[in-house]
Parts: sequence; C-alpha cells; structure tokens
Amino acid sequence: MENYRFLRACFGETTDTVPIWIMRQAGRYMPEYQEVRQKHSFMEMCKTPDLAVKVTLLPVDILGVDAAILFSDILIPVEAMGIPVEFVEGKGPVLGAKIRDESDVERLAEFDPAEKTGFVMEAVRILRKELEGKVPLIGFSGAPFTLASYIVEGGSSKNFIKLKTLMYQAPDIYRKLMSKLTRVVTDYLNAQIEAGAQAVQLFDTWAGILTPSDYREYVLPYTRKVIANLKRDEVPVIHYANDSATLLPLFRELGADVYGIDWRINLDDAVEALGGDVVVQGNMDPTALFYPVEKIEKIAGDIIARGRKARAHIFNLGHGILPTTDPEHARALVEAVHRLGKK
Amino acid sequence: MENYRFLRACFGETTDTVPIWIMRQAGRYMPEYQEVRQKHSFMEMCKTPDLAVKVTLLPVDILGVDAAILFSDILIPVEAMGIPVEFVEGKGPVLGAKIRDESDVERLAEFDPAEKTGFVMEAVRILRKELEGKVPLIGFSGAPFTLASYIVEGGSSKNFIKLKTLMYQAPDIYRKLMSKLTRVVTDYLNAQIEAGAQAVQLFDTWAGILTPSDYREYVLPYTRKVIANLKRDEVPVIHYANDSATLLPLFRELGADVYGIDWRINLDDAVEALGGDVVVQGNMDPTALFYPVEKIEKIAGDIIARGRKARAHIFNLGHGILPTTDPEHARALVEAVHRLGKK
Repeated sequence: MENYRFLRACFGETTDTVPIWIMRQAGRYMPEYQEVRQKHSFMEMCKTPDLAVKVTLLPVDILGVDAAILFSDILIPVEAMGIPVEFVEGKGPVLGAKIRDESDVERLAEFDPAEKTGFVMEAVRILRKELEGKVPLIGFSGAPFTLASYIVEGGSSKNFIKLKTLMYQAPDIYRKLMSKLTRVVTDYLNAQIEAGAQAVQLFDTWAGILTPSDYREYVLPYTRKVIANLKRDEVPVIHYANDSATLLPLFRELGADVYGIDWRINLDDAVEALGGDVVVQGNMDPTALFYPVEKIEKIAGDIIARGRKARAHIFNLGHGILPTTDPEHARALVEAVHRLGKK
Repeated sequence: MENYRFLRACFGETTDTVPIWIMRQAGRYMPEYQEVRQKHSFMEMCKTPDLAVKVTLLPVDILGVDAAILFSDILIPVEAMGIPVEFVEGKGPVLGAKIRDESDVERLAEFDPAEKTGFVMEAVRILRKELEGKVPLIGFSGAPFTLASYIVEGGSSKNFIKLKTLMYQAPDIYRKLMSKLTRVVTDYLNAQIEAGAQAVQLFDTWAGILTPSDYREYVLPYTRKVIANLKRDEVPVIHYANDSATLLPLFRELGADVYGIDWRINLDDAVEALGGDVVVQGNMDPTALFYPVEKIEKIAGDIIARGRKARAHIFNLGHGILPTTDPEHARALVEAVHRLGKK
C-alpha cells in the first residue's frame, strides 16, 4: 500500500502529491471506449468481465490517474433483485418494478452476489492482477436511497414525486424497501471487497433533492448501517452525493473515510461544513474541462489550495466527466494536479 | 399599502402575521386552471389579457394568498426579441435561436415592451383594478442568465454544456448576449412597474448550476445592474434562484429587497449565509405538500420559527408548486401559515 498515494490519502496519510481519479473516467468521452461500445451494448460491457476489465484499464494508461474504478453500472444489483432494467438511448434507464404495497417489496430478491453478479466479482479479480503494482482498484455501489429512487420512479426523475409520495404517505413500505436495499448493498460491496476491491465508493447521487430534515429521517440511518457493516480493515469507504452542500454537516455522522464533494461549494467551505479534520474528494465542475487548458490549471490550483484545509485531499470532478469532454483536457488536468499538488 | 402585509414584509416592516404566496400558484394543479387550459393553448393564455387576468385571480380567491403574481411565462420577452418559442408537450420549451457569433447576438431585437408585450402590460393594468383593496400584484421576469440559458441551450437542459462552453470559450459573445438581456429585462420590468406592478420578482432559476466563482464572474454584475436600474421607489424587488445555498453570500451584493430561498437549506441558515438582517421568502419543499395535512402544518411551523431570524419572512415554497399537488393541501398551508405566523 505504501506506494499507492490514493489509498494513503484515503486514510489521511501524507502523500508526495495530490492523488486524482475522475468519476466516469472510463466513459463515453474516450475514443478507445467508443470503439468497444460500438461492438457491444452497455449492459453487455458491464456483464462481460474481459470487456469491463479492458475499459477499466483505459484511463489508467491514457490519463495516468491514481486509481482505477470498476466499469459497471449502479443498477446491476437492482437487476439482480429481479427488476427488469433496460437502457433506452437518450432517455436513460427504464425499470420494470412497481412499488405499491409491502408485497411488492417482499417480492424483490436478496441475492447471493457471488452467484447473481459473479461477472462483477470476476472482473474485480482479473483487475487486481492486471493493476498489481500500478494503482489500486475502487469498487462501488449505489447507496440504498439512490437505488430506491430508480426503483420507485422507474428510472431517472426530475422532481422525484413518486419516491417522495411513498416516503411521506407510506413510510412503512418505504422503510421496508430501504432496509432490504441496505442489506443488498452491504452484501454486494462486501463481495467486491472479498474479490479484491481496495476501496469502495457509495454513490448517493440523488440525496441532494432532500431537505436536511428529510435526509436525517429517511436516508442517513440506512447509509450509516451499510458503512458500519462493511468488512473493511484496510478498505476505505468514500461517500459521494451530488448537490449536497447543505447536507455536509449530517454526512459526517455516516462514518465514511472520505467525503466526495460536488462543485457548487468551495472546497475549503466543504471541509468546514463537515467539521474539519476530514478527507475530501473533489470538486471541479465537470464543465470546467471545457475551459482552455491554462484556465483548467488555474482552477485546479485553486481547488488544491482550498483542499489543503482538509486532512487529505483526493482530486476529482464534482460529478461524472461529460461525454463531450476533450480527452486531452482530462489528461492535462491529471498532469496539472500531480504537478501543482506537490507538497 | 398599510393593509398589504406582503408589501410591508418586503420592506422589512412588521405585519400581523407571516404573509404567503406560492410560486406557480395559478397553475396546473388547480381544476379551475385546467378548465381554462383545455380551451386555450398555454401561450394563448399568456397573450390574452382576459385569460391571464382570470387565472391570476384564481389563487387569490381560492387559496387566500397575500399576493397575486401575473400569469405569464419567462420566455415572453425572449420571443419578443425575435426568437421562435414553441411549447412541446412533455418536453418543455423549444427555442429557435443559435448563438454562434456576435452577429447572432446583434440580430436579437431590443424591443419596446409597451408595443411587443402590450398584452402583459394590459393584463397588469386590468389586474390592478380587479385586485384593488385585496392584495398587491407581483410582476416578474427571468433574470439575464436564466434567459441566456434557454436561448443558448435551445430549451431546458441537464448539464448546460452549450451555455458553459460559450461562457468559457467565447466570453465576448456571452457578455454581449448578457448585456443585451440586461437591457431587455430592465425595460421589460420597468414597463410592468409603470403599468402598475407593485413588486417584481427576478427568476434566476438556473444560477445554482454555477460554482460561486463563476457566478461572481459571469452573472452577478448583470443581475445587479438590472436591479440598480429599476424605477422603484415603492416597488420591492425579489430575487429567486433555485438550488443556490452556496451562492447566498454573493446574492447579498445584488441589492434586492427580498431573497427567495430553495428548500435544500434550513431557512435560519439561509438568513445567516445572507449576512443577517435581511428579508427572505420561502422555503418549503414543493413535495412536502404530498405529506398529510398535519405534517404540512408541522413543517410550516418549523419554517416560520426559523424565519423569525430574518428581518421579515414571506412564506412560499422553495420552487414552483407541482402539477399533481392536491389544491386542498395548498389551501391548508395558507391557512396554517396565517394562523401559526401570528406575532
């Protein structure tokens, strides 16, 4: 581990420079990814270990990032619960579940990750061998609330009315669903850790739609339970939620090792909102990569300076890299962070 | 004015109870609105003073709110600039402009509001007569940045890539567009004030997509200029931006009389972020109206208590009321705010 600056930073230890990886770094913006994607569907890529391994490795070689993150989709465990998931071009995922009563929740399967999502664990095992001595491997899962939002809404949403209506008008059904998802996510992440994941990230992408009071009541206890039940002596947990500046004081109660921050808040203010003495990850606006390279460097330098207020800082974007990003700008960012982040 | 608790609160004066109005209060959730809408297109309703007047008055009579807000659309002045605007069911507005160079900006018309948007001014004049002695009338406009986002993106957007690309890669064209929109919005609001609007709200709905640093550089100077150039001795200006908790310290520099707050931040924290001694408007989660009525009252009471930290508080939702809201819940909210808000 001592050579892995990403893992050292996750535990708040000093590093030679600021480590960086990029959410969705193995993604559509990369011609080498598009080449694979033209021959295979997105789900096929997720479910074929050799393909998932291939695209996971691309940004490590091409961008020089300090960690690899498993190429997969947050809806993989949802599908393994028996819910049909389809990806519709230009619309996003369409899910086939209806949650109207407790029996709808009971019908959702708690599955054995080694069996139902064996392709994920196989990709993790291969990746560990391929990456040995290079960079560590991050596994991930959607957090219970974000998975619940896809299940209840039937896909992406604008106002999350179905989810909030369930939450507000049928809290028993909502809590039954969240308890089940808490067990599913815990098992799924523990299986990834057992297969070799060296860090895990919990994506609670949609938590930011809630008032602080609703977040505390309906989400926090479940995410905290997932984190508490991970088998992780040497495996740090990163918590990420988009658009969540006002929830940061509550996140500290989650017990994660690292907190991912979106771009709407200055990173030093985020550290303060989290209560200080904390490890943060982030937080460049993904669209900032559309700036000319000199300005990208300037912004990166500003974020690094603000990140010095934290115990440790892992550089990242505040949300996933966008499909129309110039890969050269991503490469320039990685180079700039390594250069400007030197202690 | 002394009988208008809404206007008194806008200027930070004491009132008998907390005033309330609701963004989009004359909207799709109301059967009486749907009745009109079934016979007329949305744009027809905006452009026919008698129809606009009719739906503007509905929530005053049915809900008992403390202010009427002109029924209109933020894209009315955009269309008056010569940009085709079409409303596509289920997709939202589709705009026909392309902003690629300075000549595209030059082609956009600065129009005489009394002439090109005479139907708006006519509706305002009729409404003032109809509302005399009841409640004051609020006029409104989109802020320059939010109008620019619709123009450059060609409609609604998820990541605002076209707008941010223009901003970052062609700042001269962006600034030329923003300067023109600043003049257009100023003239448009001044015409509404001249016609009789007793308060105006600037909707900078999308400002929250920006980092604080980008907001300061690309938006703040333009909105401040609009506010500075309004002819408004007795006409308060309300500034509203969704999802803007981290921008609140900057908003105070805008010079508005009232700051509209979205639901993601506790209202007392918003008052503090604004620097204290300020008038705020907000901030119940629109989806909170899907709670049972007793819980709605509890949440309203909590918001009112937090609002006591402000110089004055105008109750509202943190964003527009949602189409599937039960009108009875909206009515119950108005009643509860008037009862619980008593000094």
